[in-house]
Amino acid sequence: MQKALEGIRVIDLSHVLAAPTTTMFLADLGAEVIHLEPPQGDDAREYGPFVGKPGKDRSGYFISLNRNKKSLVLNLKIEEGREILRDLIRVSDIVIENFRPTTMKKMGFGWEEIRKLNPRIIYAAISGFGHDSPTEYASRPSYDMVAQAYSGLMSITGPVGGPPCRVGSSVGDIIAGQQAVIGILAALAWREKTGRGQFYDGSMVDGLFSVLESAVARYTITGKIPGPLGGAHPSITPFEAFRTKDSWIIVAAGNDVLWGKLCRILGREELIADRRFATNHLRTENQPELSAILTAELVKRTTAEWIEVFEKQDIPYSRINNIREICEDPIIAHRGMLATVDQPDIGPVRIAGSPIRLSETPGRVEGPAPRLGEHSEEVLRTVLGYDQDRIEALKARGVIHTGA
Amino acid sequence: MQKALEGIRVIDLSHVLAAPTTTMFLADLGAEVIHLEPPQGDDAREYGPFVGKPGKDRSGYFISLNRNKKSLVLNLKIEEGREILRDLIRVSDIVIENFRPTTMKKMGFGWEEIRKLNPRIIYAAISGFGHDSPTEYASRPSYDMVAQAYSGLMSITGPVGGPPCRVGSSVGDIIAGQQAVIGILAALAWREKTGRGQFYDGSMVDGLFSVLESAVARYTITGKIPGPLGGAHPSITPFEAFRTKDSWIIVAAGNDVLWGKLCRILGREELIADRRFATNHLRTENQPELSAILTAELVKRTTAEWIEVFEKQDIPYSRINNIREICEDPIIAHRGMLATVDQPDIGPVRIAGSPIRLSETPGRVEGPAPRLGEHSEEVLRTVLGYDQDRIEALKARGVIHTGA
Repeated sequence: MQKALEGIRVIDLSHVLAAPTTTMFLADLGAEVIHLEPPQGDDAREYGPFVGKPGKDRSGYFISLNRNKKSLVLNLKIEEGREILRDLIRVSDIVIENFRPTTMKKMGFGWEEIRKLNPRIIYAAISGFGHDSPTEYASRPSYDMVAQAYSGLMSITGPVGGPPCRVGSSVGDIIAGQQAVIGILAALAWREKTGRGQFYDGSMVDGLFSVLESAVARYTITGKIPGPLGGAHPSITPFEAFRTKDSWIIVAAGNDVLWGKLCRILGREELIADRRFATNHLRTENQPELSAILTAELVKRTTAEWIEVFEKQDIPYSRINNIREICEDPIIAHRGMLATVDQPDIGPVRIAGSPIRLSETPGRVEGPAPRLGEHSEEVLRTVLGYDQDRIEALKARGVIHTGA
Repeated sequence: MQKALEGIRVIDLSHVLAAPTTTMFLADLGAEVIHLEPPQGDDAREYGPFVGKPGKDRSGYFISLNRNKKSLVLNLKIEEGREILRDLIRVSDIVIENFRPTTMKKMGFGWEEIRKLNPRIIYAAISGFGHDSPTEYASRPSYDMVAQAYSGLMSITGPVGGPPCRVGSSVGDIIAGQQAVIGILAALAWREKTGRGQFYDGSMVDGLFSVLESAVARYTITGKIPGPLGGAHPSITPFEAFRTKDSWIIVAAGNDVLWGKLCRILGREELIADRRFATNHLRTENQPELSAILTAELVKRTTAEWIEVFEKQDIPYSRINNIREICEDPIIAHRGMLATVDQPDIGPVRIAGSPIRLSETPGRVEGPAPRLGEHSEEVLRTVLGYDQDRIEALKARGVIHTGA
């Protein structure tokens, strides 16, 4: 089976999460991703959980993100290292990094320099606030938490009136990383027509701001500042987590037909005619009252009992799975979403698979994550055609490092 | 300036949020998106905030997502309506929908039928649990809340020991929608090489499961079930929301260098040598203790005071913006992330812009969202070449509806 991105070579100067997410998607789809790491390795190699004792080749965090990639350890503080990077750019399709905006320029790899090396190249940068931002923003170091807080997303997540809560996974990085895949693939489509590369200037704050859903329109149209709503939805009602006799259940009645059905199931047909709840708009305006009425009914039975009823009556519902429950759920197994990578010296590690379920060229977890510097020699030999003497000399001078 | 996806035609049978997110990206990048709506319109037209009084053409929710698209109201319950859909599929590049998996098949538009109409077509479906799932999953109605709860994401979001919290925006839909863009663009790249279309079978649960970050590896490697951590990060420490004298501040010290700097800034150099906090791994294991120590220091000054210090010392930090603060922030203006669409009969509406910042072919908000059925006649005339008599007859028989 052919791969969608076969023949596409990516020079991946990324670290931790945002741009590594981008190159994970590209590698899963068949691109050759060469992950350039500094001698001490990608910071993510320090993040747990570790398989056995902590170690740069034992991080489950790093393994999850870097399956299917190659590792080339290159010292870019040495001019010879930068020369190798120039050589790689000349023969590649995509360069990606998530340093601060000034870092690449200082090393002589701004967009103007990169495009001179290869006019067909697509250069994707992901930063906290964007490359074209004023210095006071562009120079700021940024991590997921910064983007979650700065973008407004934290201000609408968490219990009503409670302390600030971050989304439990690093969506600041991940959403920007996915958007960079979109930018890169769009740029590849355009290059197909024009032969020209371009620069993608991704920002984590832009990324999260663009997915605040209706929160932006709610503020710009009504002037009201949306706040956190706990388990409820700001524009659709009833659409929330309700207490049951023994735990919780999600009920998501997103339109009038479902609302009517729900009232009948709960034996509260009179609510259908209740003016306060006649439309989704009115139900949302009167959500606290409605929530109290529905909770009073839903606490009468257990979650399992309600699931049986809702299943039969076709009401959108869900139990709230914990991470063990979802990892062991048959649907995850059926969809192949729990992939196993066989890490040399470590053994099998179970990680999330690719959601890009294409019939002919699906995203796939095929190979393990690389040990630090595992492919340093191979890349110089096969991609750049360096001979063994030259490679040995580069190793001796500390320009490249190999894993062993 | 040319557009990345110019010349790509999308038949968009989507509603509410997941697939409309996909087609929003495609339209922003220059694809021609024809949004097919049933006579009563996309459910999202019922969701607030409304500009003025509630109405199908006044929903800020719908406008945000459907800028740049056309609206064709087609009654697919009538065979003539389905015949028009077949005609459109024959002359398009992409078909997308987010019905339940059985809906399209029942109407005679399963993948096998669609590919017969046009072997080059890319058919993207987004559903709660996936098209190839066993009936008990595939037949379930699904909304964002269902995916957030089922996927495990809710179980790691919110305060420690608190009630279940959803992410404040519908990331179950949005992440699946972005992933579908990735799948579609990868399929376009493959079609360029092979001439063949394919089927994308997206699942909202797969989508969120794939972005749980290290939560999956934490469970599969350690057997422990990750829970919600409030404002903290599961694998990086210190990386959380801290109380200050007057509000909160994010500190994100993601590596040892930043950790050392932070200790010195707080006048607590002795912590650098403290064995409990010597590595990121140990700091994460001892996060509650460390958090208490750091909070005791951070509550001594106001957020503004700390911002000045951290800014100067290059520590990653952030204030927690609310939605007004981020909408009015100069960086959002500078990046053009708050776009204005001029809606006929309504006036200007400010919505989030495109994060796909490409130098030559950026994503753009160029046109308003369509009124219900606004382009019904235009599409039949220009895309399918129907003459006015035929169009009038279709209108008279209720096969198509026009806005006016």
